[in-house]
Amino acid sequence: MIKHALPVTREADFAAWYQAVITGADLAEESGVRGCMVIRPWGYGIWERMQRLLDDRIRATGHENCYFPLFIPLSYFEKEAEHVEGFAKEMAVVTHHRLIADGKGGLMPDPEAKLEEPLIVRPTSETVIGAAFARWVQSWRDLPVLINQWANVVRWEMRTRMFLRTSEFLWQEGHTAHATSDEAREETLRMLEVYRSFAEENLALPVVAGEKPENERFPGAVATYSIEAMMQDGKALQAGTSHFLGTNFAAAQNIRFQNKEGQFELANTTSWGVSTRMVGAVIMTHGDDDGLRVPPAIAPWQIVIVPMLRDTPEDEAVIAYCRELQAALAVGSALGEPIRALIDLKAAKATVKRWGWVKKGAPVIVEVGGRDVSGGNVSVIRRDRLYRQDGKLDSQVLARDVFVTGAGSMLEDIQRAIHHEARARLEKNIERGVSDYAGLESFFAENVKYPGWVEVQWARPTGAELDAVVEKLKSLKLTIRNAPMDGAPAEGTCLFTGKPAVERVLIGRAY
Amino acid sequence: MIKHALPVTREADFAAWYQAVITGADLAEESGVRGCMVIRPWGYGIWERMQRLLDDRIRATGHENCYFPLFIPLSYFEKEAEHVEGFAKEMAVVTHHRLIADGKGGLMPDPEAKLEEPLIVRPTSETVIGAAFARWVQSWRDLPVLINQWANVVRWEMRTRMFLRTSEFLWQEGHTAHATSDEAREETLRMLEVYRSFAEENLALPVVAGEKPENERFPGAVATYSIEAMMQDGKALQAGTSHFLGTNFAAAQNIRFQNKEGQFELANTTSWGVSTRMVGAVIMTHGDDDGLRVPPAIAPWQIVIVPMLRDTPEDEAVIAYCRELQAALAVGSALGEPIRALIDLKAAKATVKRWGWVKKGAPVIVEVGGRDVSGGNVSVIRRDRLYRQDGKLDSQVLARDVFVTGAGSMLEDIQRAIHHEARARLEKNIERGVSDYAGLESFFAENVKYPGWVEVQWARPTGAELDAVVEKLKSLKLTIRNAPMDGAPAEGTCLFTGKPAVERVLIGRAY
Repeated sequence: MIKHALPVTREADFAAWYQAVITGADLAEESGVRGCMVIRPWGYGIWERMQRLLDDRIRATGHENCYFPLFIPLSYFEKEAEHVEGFAKEMAVVTHHRLIADGKGGLMPDPEAKLEEPLIVRPTSETVIGAAFARWVQSWRDLPVLINQWANVVRWEMRTRMFLRTSEFLWQEGHTAHATSDEAREETLRMLEVYRSFAEENLALPVVAGEKPENERFPGAVATYSIEAMMQDGKALQAGTSHFLGTNFAAAQNIRFQNKEGQFELANTTSWGVSTRMVGAVIMTHGDDDGLRVPPAIAPWQIVIVPMLRDTPEDEAVIAYCRELQAALAVGSALGEPIRALIDLKAAKATVKRWGWVKKGAPVIVEVGGRDVSGGNVSVIRRDRLYRQDGKLDSQVLARDVFVTGAGSMLEDIQRAIHHEARARLEKNIERGVSDYAGLESFFAENVKYPGWVEVQWARPTGAELDAVVEKLKSLKLTIRNAPMDGAPAEGTCLFTGKPAVERVLIGRAY
Repeated sequence: MIKHALPVTREADFAAWYQAVITGADLAEESGVRGCMVIRPWGYGIWERMQRLLDDRIRATGHENCYFPLFIPLSYFEKEAEHVEGFAKEMAVVTHHRLIADGKGGLMPDPEAKLEEPLIVRPTSETVIGAAFARWVQSWRDLPVLINQWANVVRWEMRTRMFLRTSEFLWQEGHTAHATSDEAREETLRMLEVYRSFAEENLALPVVAGEKPENERFPGAVATYSIEAMMQDGKALQAGTSHFLGTNFAAAQNIRFQNKEGQFELANTTSWGVSTRMVGAVIMTHGDDDGLRVPPAIAPWQIVIVPMLRDTPEDEAVIAYCRELQAALAVGSALGEPIRALIDLKAAKATVKRWGWVKKGAPVIVEVGGRDVSGGNVSVIRRDRLYRQDGKLDSQVLARDVFVTGAGSMLEDIQRAIHHEARARLEKNIERGVSDYAGLESFFAENVKYPGWVEVQWARPTGAELDAVVEKLKSLKLTIRNAPMDGAPAEGTCLFTGKPAVERVLIGRAY
């Protein structure tokens, strides 16, 4: 039996395994502030790669980045509160602007420096961006407005989990305003597709893009779309959302423009976002019992060269050989970018380094010892196929030049292989053979450990009829994830109401 | 006389001119929260370009990016407060984590959701990064630790000015820990040089790198270095700092390591940062009475193509010609990167667009009308030489292919030209002929509107002797900026004490 690098397997305890990957791969750690994490270089490097690739896609579709303030005056939320019964929002509230000595050796907020109006640390910039749009948009000539923001936001969370649910998180939020509802709907779907292709092509993350049911819509949205990913415990993770807001937000925020005929109209708006939650999705999709496996497209270092040093004069030749190898790799390219190769020169044993990089999930680990140098070889470990059939580590000796020439396609092959593996798992775990509610109940009763999703047909009930469905599913800890855009046409009856079905939806447990 | 694009000139009112550039170039605007600004796409795009170029330099010197929490527990500041008499810090204090209805139609912080310990919105991450270093560093093998963070920070400011002094600002802060003081000193100077070369080469910003006098050191630092830039009103702007902290911070934060001999030692640490203040420096260095002039290296768009449309069927050919031009430019490169060219297709008159881009400071504006299309030409405006000798706009008709072929070198020439212009201004405005204090007084009395700097020799007094110098200068609204690294050797007597001089320092008014 293989002795894996992590102290706990996915099979034994998925939640503990998730935390073990994060610790073992040095992705993040507790900060001392509840619900806020320190994102360490390897974790932040993955996020930065995600940012750059997604940002390129957001720019390529005509959007520009801006930056809005961290603080939002409390009064901005009062309008919203008027419409929300029992309004209570878990948000960080700034009430003072100075600390002074408390006379007992400690510090306290200075009572003299109490703010006249409390400030809220942005839970999203929706309201301030809406206010800016109202200033910027006067005429049809000013439309569309297509902007995006990368920022930190805060939503006070009682139960937190690294990357998946943290009080502070990093995200991008796109906001756009358009002259017509058609244009805004088109934009909403365009960004959904940007997210889908980003997830599939860059993160190797298979997702299902579709429309959320009415009860899962962003409050005030006319339609909400999501991409849903399946984690290795068979649960769903909503990895990105795109909202068509119609004129609802424009009405609340007074985003009006004079059309070509000189009449005033409300703009149609959209918003869409993804967050550091994506890092959690990558961990739970691609990780294995030896740690993380980072898709090459988002790996801060794609190839890590570990010189096997012995504190002898020969070390110099080994290091020189590694440097030449690094330089040779760097002129090559993979996935449309120069190859990112690192030499790990830290003072530690080579095997410790090897297993460190296995846990971090560097796509390719190259070990170079004295014998490799004299033979003109390298010893190569592919992180996506770590073990041979006999359970031994699969380290292959390759001629240096063969490895260098093929490095780009090896990385592309790894990207493809882990995508394919995850895609196959997703498809295998969508059950389509359930046709009545009892079947749904027994399916999830029988598949507790690895539920997967069930695709059913429904009549898209609304109002009280939908509420009843939602409540029934809730008692089984299930939710409707979305109605897949590329789902087969409906042809039977609704699983819940018995009426003629109008579409297919995915049902599952979710994060 | 030329009628310039801005409503106010530098000569007439520099402060009003600065604000007019920001408004005219759509860089930023008030947000509704005191001291916090909305950074609009053109302003944020310049900052993003700065970030990318500086980040490349920070990575190339071996540093990795991480992310630390926005909030810092109040107790982290108490240790600091113990040592600081009359401690009072202007910081945003979070005291509650929920809003509820106040029963009068408004909202208020929920008294039930008062935090046990207030949280401070980070004014810097120094303390939490120090605490992380104490966790991360155990052995000499863990050193050096070389990290950097890009983040927003908050320091409550009473008097604010866009980009120069805002309550929330964006910055990077680097923090490193080393085994020896020599290594840490070397790091401090390496990062000073990174800032200097970034300013000169990427921002076309001439700066003087040097050591700050003792009274201007970062509290707790052994040595503080800065780069100082001269604005067009002859005042100094500190554009970046690098601190050698010795073991002072390591002692306070318990950053210890076991050395090769098995003994415990304190690490030596450094920190260094630059902020969105740099955008202010670029405006006040390169702007003119027609708006901003963005150095090509940091221009979000380097070449803006303005099609001159007439709402006739010929428009299509003009747009097609522009698209081909854009594609041809994009395969070229300038300053080591692909050329960034935009077609401005907004619904507005071509002259309005032209002057919009003049105010924004796009390095090259290309106008294309029907006549250009039929002649195979383009009409080119270089932002760094906007007017001809006769005061007319200098728009040159060039053959399209000649322009495309030469576009890269034109952009490089603009980068060089504005750097050269600013460098010449800096050098012209450092006065070296002042040898006694009366001379210093009368120099600044005579040069009120455009003070510039005076370089003097001094004996580097410390303690009370230095305090006296600082007070004297303060009465003239002057400060010692730094002792230039490349200053001539001292050879005379100290302007303040009459003792033998040991170095030269720059004195000026400052932002």
